[in-house]
Amino acid sequence: MKALNALAICTMLAAPSIASAQFTKPEFAIKYRQSTMFIQGQHFGRIGAVVKGTRPYNQDEVVQNAMIVEEMSKLHWPAFGPGTDQGAPTRALPAIWKEPDKFQAAGKRLQEEVQKLVATAKGGDQGQLKAAFGAVGQACDGCHEDYRKD
Amino acid sequence: MKALNALAICTMLAAPSIASAQFTKPEFAIKYRQSTMFIQGQHFGRIGAVVKGTRPYNQDEVVQNAMIVEEMSKLHWPAFGPGTDQGAPTRALPAIWKEPDKFQAAGKRLQEEVQKLVATAKGGDQGQLKAAFGAVGQACDGCHEDYRKD
Repeated sequence: MKALNALAICTMLAAPSIASAQFTKPEFAIKYRQSTMFIQGQHFGRIGAVVKGTRPYNQDEVVQNAMIVEEMSKLHWPAFGPGTDQGAPTRALPAIWKEPDKFQAAGKRLQEEVQKLVATAKGGDQGQLKAAFGAVGQACDGCHEDYRKD
Repeated sequence: MKALNALAICTMLAAPSIASAQFTKPEFAIKYRQSTMFIQGQHFGRIGAVVKGTRPYNQDEVVQNAMIVEEMSKLHWPAFGPGTDQGAPTRALPAIWKEPDKFQAAGKRLQEEVQKLVATAKGGDQGQLKAAFGAVGQACDGCHEDYRKD
């Protein structure tokens, strides 16, 4: 049942629906999700610098960064498959596999907010960009609070 | 001059032309390129399993994997900017910054072969897939041989 739930996370969340079974070792799944999260964070941080005014606004750059964040926001989930709670150092908490419905909802929320961020970036309104950036940040934090070690 | 050459690598190779200057620390650039290479390798390996016959052929999956490889193949290069030859453990060789034209050519070759792989995957011919997969593998190896520690 637990395995089924975890599989459901993978198949329902992943926009590119590539099964977690394709990771040949749990450590690869762990490294993979750490990689996608890191890339996402780098590009999200670049939008953050614009929003905070420490980097000049350039719409093309913001759109590019938002689109890479979007791409990454789809890739994480198959890497949280059954048996990937260990195998390499990880901050992923057991709650991910204990309450898959809630974890799945948190992942969906992220993807939805990121889609709005991309649309807002393309729209070019800097005021709206700040709000959309904040909403994605809240989606990140919400998930990290419950599912990632401090 | 060296800095200019290295900057040229970043601006000419990167399809999403996001300057290396956006990495706030060299260690982030190093971790970033290691992340993009890892993700690329995972998805390329999945196509490899199909080509080698250890995984059943599914065109949608092959196309999805090829497209993620393509996305990654664009992202590496800005992370090889000036000053990112050190700052964290890295297998990147000094030749990257000493012969930027050759490194740039190797990066372009990868991107071109990956674009062909995507087109071939979409075409659906398994014989051609094997050849296109091999050509990408050669582009990877060619670059690693000259620019990555064993």
